[in-house]
This record gives sequence, structure tokens and C-alpha cells, in this order.
Amino acid sequence: MTMDLKDYIRDVPNFPAPGIVFRDITPLLADPDAFNYAISKLAERYRGQRIDAVVAVESRGFLVGAPLARELGTPLVPVRKPGKLPAATISTQYTLEYGSDTMEMHVDGISPGQHALVVDDLLATGGTLAAVGRLIELAGGLVVEMAVIIELTALEGRWSLETHDVFSLVQY
Amino acid sequence: MTMDLKDYIRDVPNFPAPGIVFRDITPLLADPDAFNYAISKLAERYRGQRIDAVVAVESRGFLVGAPLARELGTPLVPVRKPGKLPAATISTQYTLEYGSDTMEMHVDGISPGQHALVVDDLLATGGTLAAVGRLIELAGGLVVEMAVIIELTALEGRWSLETHDVFSLVQY
Repeated sequence: MTMDLKDYIRDVPNFPAPGIVFRDITPLLADPDAFNYAISKLAERYRGQRIDAVVAVESRGFLVGAPLARELGTPLVPVRKPGKLPAATISTQYTLEYGSDTMEMHVDGISPGQHALVVDDLLATGGTLAAVGRLIELAGGLVVEMAVIIELTALEGRWSLETHDVFSLVQY
Repeated sequence: MTMDLKDYIRDVPNFPAPGIVFRDITPLLADPDAFNYAISKLAERYRGQRIDAVVAVESRGFLVGAPLARELGTPLVPVRKPGKLPAATISTQYTLEYGSDTMEMHVDGISPGQHALVVDDLLATGGTLAAVGRLIELAGGLVVEMAVIIELTALEGRWSLETHDVFSLVQY
């Protein structure tokens, strides 16, 4: 069975800023068949590959990464904004249009030599995912691939991720 | 098979403030069997009940609610901090020790008469979950129960939730 996941993504104009059209996955989350299809398509791609951990990016990446990790039977490692993870962390900074932001992972999240699959809901400019990639490499891990539901191709985030491959279910 | 989930919850002293011991579920997330066990135990309780939506509370609640919704085959509705949800929202405020906070849900998240299962990782004082309960009732929905992995019983959050029942997998 094939589904067109775009049927479950709605356009919200002027979010988060005027002139921007936000691709909203909440209709996909609200449709059990579509959500199951999305997770299953991702699982299908990675089943049989060596994945030592699914690294899920706060917050919407948690919605995708948690069921995917459970489906694959792999550890689930959260990457979060500063100050949210309770134990000792490592962190990387990344620049935004104005200013910068930081992502954190527990120091024991990824061990040297582990193969990590990075999961988020969306790839835009790639700043966040690039920072998560550096975080995994800082821990001595290897990024298998970066998997997202939606890729905004016009923003060319894929090319800013350098050595990392990106897999997306839906492209705009 | 029975597992003691406390084996997968670690104590982090002095987080988020001096003198507080934080119950950290990241070891549980990192253990596929334990994580699967936790989600399966929750699913077991609600399978067969009328659940029209799993309402997951940002952020750690997403890690529990997303796989649970997928397992139950029900819609997944995110409740988030202000300004995060792109479309039209309804909101409720709740008081914290100092100041107040707000939770938002899309106006089309829950329809009148729907039965919602609220999911979060942890019940402390119950302020957040009470606000989420009000949000669902504001939308005309009915709260079936509030399900968490961890309940901090000394904080008596269960009693602050008034008419809502709480189910927890682990109690401290």
C-alpha cells in the first residue's frame, strides 16, 4: 500500500514569521494509518542495518524517533535544548539567522564507535541537524544517516550537512 | 515477564535545583526491552477502552505518547508550550512555584465528546497535567485517565488533579 503523506501535512501561512509557510505534521499525527505508514517506511529503510541508537531531536523529533526506536528495537537517545537533560552533557553550538543556539546530549548517550541514526521531523536549513551530527562525532560515534519526515529542498539543508546523508519521506 | 522499571531510572542529584533528586528516564529509553515493556504495559491497560486520542505533553511526554498512540492505533495530539503549535490554538495557564506557565493545543486537536488519554513521563505536583485536563475539557473532550511512567507520590500531584484518575508504572 502506498500513501501520499502530503495529504496529511497542512500548510500554515505566516508561521513562525510573516511570509513563511509552515508545513505542519499534526494532521499526520492525528491519522493513525498515516502515522503508522510514516514510521513503518522509516523502519523499513533501516531494518537490517547496523543502528546502535536512534538519536531523536527535541521536540518534534521525539514524536518520530521514539516509535521508530521501538520499532527497530534500538536504544533511544534524546538530544535537547540547553539545561533540559539532567545528567552530564556534551554540547554543540550552531548559528541561527540571528544569534546562536545549543544542542545537548548526555555524555553517555553515544559511546565511541557506535552507529547513530539521527531523527527529526523536518530538514530546513540543516543547522540543527549539523549540530547534532557534530555532537555524535564529538562522542566518538558515527552518523549512519539523518532521517526526517519533511525536507524543504529550497533551503538546501541537505548540502549544509556535508558528509551526512539525509533521507526524507516528503519533499517540498 | 515482569521487569522492575526502577532498574532503568537513575537518580540525578541537584537537578533542576540544589537539593532535588531528579528521576531520569534516559536509561529506560536507552534499553529497548525496558522501553518496550513500559509502552506495552500502558497499551495493555488501555487496549479495548474507548480512546479517541492520546494527548502527549511536550517534551518528554512525546517520547511516551507517540509510541503508545501508534501501539493503540489512536490519533496523537501534541500539547505544547506557548508559540510552538503553528495553527489556531486554545490555551490554559497554570501556576508554578514562581510565576505561571501556559499549555496550548490546536483548536482541532480534540472534538467535543471525544475521549482523551493524557500521557506524560512524570507526575510531580500535577500542575501541568491539571492544565492539560482543563484544555481537553475546554475543547469539550473527556479525560479517560492520565498515564505517566513515574509518579512522585510525596508531592501528592494525584490529589491536585481532582476528578482525573492517574495511572503510573513506577512510584517513588
